[in-house]
Amino acid sequence: MRTLQVDLGERSYPIYIGGGLLEKAGDFFEQHQQSTKSPVLIVTDDHVAPKYLPVVETSLQAKGYRTVSKVVKAGEKSKSLDVYEEVMTTAIEGGLDRRSAVVALGGGVVGDLAGFVAATYMRGVTFVQMPTTILAHDSSVGGKVAVNHRLAKNMIGAFHQPEMVLYDVDSLQSLPPRDVRAGLSEMIKHGLIWDAAFADWCREHTADLLALDPEALGYGLTQGCSIKSQVVSVDERENGLRAILNLGHTLGHAIEAIGGYGEFLHGEAISIGMAAAAKLAVNRGRDPQIYKQTVSILSGFGLPTAMPAHLNEQDVIGAMMHDKKFKEQTMVFILPLAIGRVEIVSDVTLDEVRQVIAELKEEGQHV
Amino acid sequence: MRTLQVDLGERSYPIYIGGGLLEKAGDFFEQHQQSTKSPVLIVTDDHVAPKYLPVVETSLQAKGYRTVSKVVKAGEKSKSLDVYEEVMTTAIEGGLDRRSAVVALGGGVVGDLAGFVAATYMRGVTFVQMPTTILAHDSSVGGKVAVNHRLAKNMIGAFHQPEMVLYDVDSLQSLPPRDVRAGLSEMIKHGLIWDAAFADWCREHTADLLALDPEALGYGLTQGCSIKSQVVSVDERENGLRAILNLGHTLGHAIEAIGGYGEFLHGEAISIGMAAAAKLAVNRGRDPQIYKQTVSILSGFGLPTAMPAHLNEQDVIGAMMHDKKFKEQTMVFILPLAIGRVEIVSDVTLDEVRQVIAELKEEGQHV
Ligand SMILES: NC(=O)c1ccc[n+]([C@@H]2O[C@H](COP(=O)([O-])OP(=O)(O)OC[C@H]3O[C@@H](n4cnc5c(N)ncnc54)[C@H](O)[C@@H]3O)[C@@H](O)[C@H]2O)c1
Ligand SMILES: NC(=O)c1ccc[n+]([C@@H]2O[C@H](COP(=O)([O-])OP(=O)(O)OC[C@H]3O[C@@H](n4cnc5c(N)ncnc54)[C@H](O)[C@@H]3O)[C@@H](O)[C@H]2O)c1
Ligand SMILES: [Zn+2]
Ligand SMILES: [Zn+2]
Repeated sequence: MRTLQVDLGERSYPIYIGGGLLEKAGDFFEQHQQSTKSPVLIVTDDHVAPKYLPVVETSLQAKGYRTVSKVVKAGEKSKSLDVYEEVMTTAIEGGLDRRSAVVALGGGVVGDLAGFVAATYMRGVTFVQMPTTILAHDSSVGGKVAVNHRLAKNMIGAFHQPEMVLYDVDSLQSLPPRDVRAGLSEMIKHGLIWDAAFADWCREHTADLLALDPEALGYGLTQGCSIKSQVVSVDERENGLRAILNLGHTLGHAIEAIGGYGEFLHGEAISIGMAAAAKLAVNRGRDPQIYKQTVSILSGFGLPTAMPAHLNEQDVIGAMMHDKKFKEQTMVFILPLAIGRVEIVSDVTLDEVRQVIAELKEEGQHV
Repeated sequence: MRTLQVDLGERSYPIYIGGGLLEKAGDFFEQHQQSTKSPVLIVTDDHVAPKYLPVVETSLQAKGYRTVSKVVKAGEKSKSLDVYEEVMTTAIEGGLDRRSAVVALGGGVVGDLAGFVAATYMRGVTFVQMPTTILAHDSSVGGKVAVNHRLAKNMIGAFHQPEMVLYDVDSLQSLPPRDVRAGLSEMIKHGLIWDAAFADWCREHTADLLALDPEALGYGLTQGCSIKSQVVSVDERENGLRAILNLGHTLGHAIEAIGGYGEFLHGEAISIGMAAAAKLAVNRGRDPQIYKQTVSILSGFGLPTAMPAHLNEQDVIGAMMHDKKFKEQTMVFILPLAIGRVEIVSDVTLDEVRQVIAELKEEGQHV
């Protein structure tokens, strides 16, 4: 087992990464001195529940915890205020009190949803993450929790750091291949923004990672969490540096929103977004290699890098307007300077974005 | 104008109390260096809007701010997730960004609702309170914001301190008498828990306060805010001392909940709750004078102190079970030791509560 400490002063917490951790959930709760007098709410989804919910329930109950579980429908649509309200109902009916813990057992969707419940139930209770997707290595660091508004993604949320993260890599073996790829997209992102050597390592271990080789996964997830944690420690509430984590996200979120949060997975959408950011950088005079290398590593993982032909340019621009990164009338983008280094620019014009969208549609036609 | 600084480290903020402040809203925004590039959302209700919304809009616009307004229905029922979602929609459609401010123009309902929006819109934006009720002197200190769940009050919320509070006492002149009384109930509470001299002052100035005498109001509100602010400065997130502010609230919230948040005003419900707490203290052996004095000061203001006959004991107990103060299977109550001093006890039994409910129903029959 690897332990990574996320360094946030009095809100610091450990991420435990290794095999067989879910069946030890009760031990970790005990170790973290969670009171057995207060019920624990486990939030999970209907893909994850049949596989892993009983293990966690049994482990917690064996240590004397009373558990209540809420199983939501799998998929981004569960990150809604309606489902949030349902989870709140379960929490209240289950008798959760101010010393209770809310557990997110699942991917980023369940993590963000359960995290927002934990942040706001009785104005905030203990939050424990048990990620079961690769993508969730990203959402398990940094304390951002949220649900979507019909008009824009992650619009309603909070900062709420977990008490601990139990990352059981065994659970990743059952992930569908499409979610494996989408999750690796954020891992690659961490290389692209911060660590060229890690980006190289990802490229070299493409096959191992796609095959869910435990050793490669363990290293890649630890490295990904560690990079994110370094960034977040410097800037917990995104006043500056933290924005670099949004590489590919300005456009990515727009693509997700117009697909109704169903057509594209988050990791797929940001893969296109990262390709677009690289193209935009090149259009501004950066080395054309940046775009070629970005596309090469992402497409090596089977991730999309062209703009789907059926997406309407005006819809994409419209959805970006609602995005948080569109602040004070100027459009903020994270652009690569080289592999492993990015800059935050705030003067991107609509014309530049239109041009990149057109160019990335072109790319799609060559394939 | 009186200025009171609420002392919370880097989250400290001023409360400005005086006449004619709403028409100077724009000046205060400017003074607090709120950017004019980001739109401002004003949340208010349909009783307050016709009277005071244009003044605030005009004042902000004169200083170059773009404003969007959301007028909700007056009353506790607007503290719901549904209305919260509507306000979020207005915020998104109005183009609010991370540097925007959300203004609560109204009483505690609008304050709690708009505050929860400010706490969670894009994971938190600037919050400005412009209280227009007496009760809101309480909600404008301490940063508690929330909406209700159908099963229990204030169950969904956050801690989010305002940037400033503009308390225009002129606006209180239009308050309906029932809301004047209900608001004074929290002012009296601040005397009862912390400051016997202030409780005396309230009793001596009953007539002035009920007549909305500006000098008495200005002093009473400043004193009430100041007491709350002293308590909150010691314990911002209610780990200990802050709980004393809940005098009367354990039972009060239950009374509100079973009335469907419509029958009793918050201040009325906690007035009954404060009488009940005093009775409970006496039943536990405290000086019977405590109960007599509590009832005397509250009823002097025309506030209810008996348990309404039609409220079913089992319903009251059931609603209390959902309350946040019912933690780890024991029931926490704030009980008076004397006028101006309270203790937090956590071993109150259901039988004691039943007995007090019965006794307070009795009281009702003598009237
Ligand atoms: N909070 C943050 O900092 C942050 C960071 C990145 C992403 N996110 C959010 O995360 C979400 C995406 O996360 P995700 O990709 O994990 O999505 P997800 O939670 O929807 O999981 C993807 C799919 O895999 C299934 N699944 C999960 N674990 C499984 C397992 N072990 N075996 C089989 N199937 C399994 C799920 O049921 C789902 O169908 C987005 O909503 C995104 O906004 C948040
Ligand atoms: N956050 C906190 O710390 C805190 C503390 C105490 C109470 N509260 C909450 O505050 C709420 C009660 O506050 P409230 O009593 O102000 O209720 P309110 O906001 O409903 O206002 C009472 C009534 O007066 C009307 N009104 C407001 N200002 C007016 C004016 N100047 N002239 C004429 N009419 C006016 C309103 O439209 C409403 O009908 C409850 O929801 C309670 O839970 C919160
Ligand atoms: Zn992401
Ligand atoms: Zn109150």
